[in-house]
Amino acid sequence: MVMTEAREGLKHDRKGVEAVIAALAAMLGNRLVTSKAVREQHANTITWLGNQPPDAVVFPHTTAEVQEIVRLCAAERVPVIAFGTGTSLEGHVNAPRGGVSIDFRDMNHVLAIHAEDLDCVVEPGVTRKQLNEHLRDRGLFFPIDPGADASLGGMAATRASGTNAVRYGTMKDNVLALKVVLANGKVVSTARRAKKSSAGYDLTRLIVGSEGTLGVITELTLRLSGIPEAVLSGVCPFPTVEAACNATITTIQSGIPIARIELLDALMVRGCNLYSKLSLPEVPMLFVEFHGSDAGVAEQSQRFGEIAKEFGGGPFDWATKAEDRTRLWQARHDAAWALRSLRNTGFGIATDVCVPISRLAECVTETQRDIAENRLVAPIVGHVGDGNFHVALSVDLTDADEKARVEKFLERLVERALAMDGTCTGEHGIGQGKMQYLKAEHGEAALDAMRAIKRALDPLDIMNPGKIVNL
Amino acid sequence: MVMTEAREGLKHDRKGVEAVIAALAAMLGNRLVTSKAVREQHANTITWLGNQPPDAVVFPHTTAEVQEIVRLCAAERVPVIAFGTGTSLEGHVNAPRGGVSIDFRDMNHVLAIHAEDLDCVVEPGVTRKQLNEHLRDRGLFFPIDPGADASLGGMAATRASGTNAVRYGTMKDNVLALKVVLANGKVVSTARRAKKSSAGYDLTRLIVGSEGTLGVITELTLRLSGIPEAVLSGVCPFPTVEAACNATITTIQSGIPIARIELLDALMVRGCNLYSKLSLPEVPMLFVEFHGSDAGVAEQSQRFGEIAKEFGGGPFDWATKAEDRTRLWQARHDAAWALRSLRNTGFGIATDVCVPISRLAECVTETQRDIAENRLVAPIVGHVGDGNFHVALSVDLTDADEKARVEKFLERLVERALAMDGTCTGEHGIGQGKMQYLKAEHGEAALDAMRAIKRALDPLDIMNPGKIVNL
Repeated sequence: MVMTEAREGLKHDRKGVEAVIAALAAMLGNRLVTSKAVREQHANTITWLGNQPPDAVVFPHTTAEVQEIVRLCAAERVPVIAFGTGTSLEGHVNAPRGGVSIDFRDMNHVLAIHAEDLDCVVEPGVTRKQLNEHLRDRGLFFPIDPGADASLGGMAATRASGTNAVRYGTMKDNVLALKVVLANGKVVSTARRAKKSSAGYDLTRLIVGSEGTLGVITELTLRLSGIPEAVLSGVCPFPTVEAACNATITTIQSGIPIARIELLDALMVRGCNLYSKLSLPEVPMLFVEFHGSDAGVAEQSQRFGEIAKEFGGGPFDWATKAEDRTRLWQARHDAAWALRSLRNTGFGIATDVCVPISRLAECVTETQRDIAENRLVAPIVGHVGDGNFHVALSVDLTDADEKARVEKFLERLVERALAMDGTCTGEHGIGQGKMQYLKAEHGEAALDAMRAIKRALDPLDIMNPGKIVNL
Repeated sequence: MVMTEAREGLKHDRKGVEAVIAALAAMLGNRLVTSKAVREQHANTITWLGNQPPDAVVFPHTTAEVQEIVRLCAAERVPVIAFGTGTSLEGHVNAPRGGVSIDFRDMNHVLAIHAEDLDCVVEPGVTRKQLNEHLRDRGLFFPIDPGADASLGGMAATRASGTNAVRYGTMKDNVLALKVVLANGKVVSTARRAKKSSAGYDLTRLIVGSEGTLGVITELTLRLSGIPEAVLSGVCPFPTVEAACNATITTIQSGIPIARIELLDALMVRGCNLYSKLSLPEVPMLFVEFHGSDAGVAEQSQRFGEIAKEFGGGPFDWATKAEDRTRLWQARHDAAWALRSLRNTGFGIATDVCVPISRLAECVTETQRDIAENRLVAPIVGHVGDGNFHVALSVDLTDADEKARVEKFLERLVERALAMDGTCTGEHGIGQGKMQYLKAEHGEAALDAMRAIKRALDPLDIMNPGKIVNL
């Protein structure tokens, strides 16, 4: 299994752990939990990686408490693992060397909304849906939407993106500043609220995507967007995946500021029909959405319609009512669950790669052929405007042969993406599951640089060790 | 003078320098220059900082040559300073400890254009105008436009932005990947061509804005944009700077995707009239530009017009013809030179700060008051959609009293921006000139983190030493 690829490392000293737990208990009372069930819930979560529980789980209320937790752990070289909602997909929150999981459940306050500046300040445990609920009356929203209702701290830590990224960017583009507790227990503010700055190294972007291995995020300043005046969503069938990809490429090249453009292959559409009670034609589909003024979305959708037609797409089905739109995108976000409707004996694995858009059709088509040849149940769904797509794999974990075929398939998928100048992950991150691919993607010199940075900021290797790079 | 604030550090050993120069001469022939005139041209350039020339200037042709140069310098602990066009504004290319200036004049080739993927690969000596000339026939452009025709390597190194940043972002948003020679002589590719990735630390964004202190950029993969179908530019007078700022805030909040929105105060307009032979009313003005479809720009400009009117702005003067538009924006880009038309005895100093947009009107107004109280000639021009503005100061360097007043003014300007949760520089960078403000802006813990990163990647402190942070 993939899990075995992650180096276990030496477990820290048991006495040190006990000392830390005793000190944390004195400080936090019942906000320190060591029960097996809770520890296991904070480990492999929804992945197929082996469960590697932390020694304890804590629920801090303030940055100062997080500082104290990190200082106590540092003194005994006990690992620190930040935990949001546990919806990451590559074993990011597993604790291969034990340690203390910091669950940000209680640090879930929206601290400030600066409507004039289109930004807000939140604690890391605030989830994206919670924030958008909070913002709705102000006419603002936070556009980044990975499928799950993830915590914003976790989304920053994993450089999350989602369906809106084609227009609004990813977490790297929508985090203005972070408050971070470093391994030395000090708090760093990575930037001011100014929209741009050229004052020194970009610590914000260094922390975004570092998966808790360089520090623990305790506050985020996020860029917000105005809720568009008009929103128009629709679905459009295509004769082939290639035709849908080519329509996407032309749309992006034409500069149409499309807000969402999602590909579902025929099998994924079937899954959504079953799971979300839709009645879409079971062929490759693009789910699209346009944001703008009334006239703007009308023009965008018309131009997109012409492009789609050119590639044999259509007819369109437009969801003009808000509730139809919500239902459509809920079905898209539930795609991972829809896998169960296709095969209820399997365990679901979600993986992703991202390639330059010119190679997208080829990459998806080859991947479909690979799926068929290996008799896998694996629908494809993708943020194709960014060249990013997911494969949702159903695996019967009791079937050794199938497991082996899935593992080999995952390796080939990454190799295929890398050969096309792509990346082993567009938005899921490295965690434990994809560490083995980092060298092939970046090369030894870049990996050495990453290790040097890790060592510089975390010389004791206590911040989420065993993820991204091993020292 | 500001210059004296920069710590000089110990000069390297003279014998070491001579050994490096001898080796470089053998390798590069007449592409190694040690004449005083050329060395001085590669030092303080257009700034008022003292001239600190390197020991030699080299003109490499390949990444492999840059590697060899860095290796030779590293062996003798001789500093390496990357040089593009020398248009940076804070002493970035000065050589306080001597060393070798690497001039990228000859590495000025566009290596690849991937039109389908909206990206290109260039050498660092390619300038932004050269690239846009090259791209024009493909219907593509690179939007980042600092006033000068800077090199793209320099623009990445200083995290440049400019008038289009409000819509297209800064260099941080438009660099997809970099090839970088590190202090150890190894070449790192920071990312693939995929539009997004969550595979490991964001080395691209770490190098962007690091001002040559972490490595030397030898290749850039840049994100391109489609030349918009329609472009509409215009100028609009306002009764006060505050009214113009408030119209800007409302425009941004309304989600109008304005491509450029530039404030010129009355004195700056007067300078542009004199220098660029325009006949604009000498009151605060907004220069604006809209990009989109014909219908789109019509709608955007109409909505902006309504907002401007609400704040007492108007009447508009629209430049519908391409040549009028070019003339207008050339005048804007020549604003720094226009200073000479206002007072031809002075030396021109350009500085910038950036604040949250809600504080912009206040910051500009207070700055104008400060200018008046201190009897300075200092027009203001700004990328106000981002909360970023420049002050162009005319200083008679022979007048000690005026110099002292300018220095105090510059300090107060930064203090004012920081007090408003802004940054000491939105786009000019730190170099030598603003090192003294970095601690006030980021705090000691963040500065320690920056130093740790610098030490990790450049333990001998040979990469552009004496800039951003001192070890």
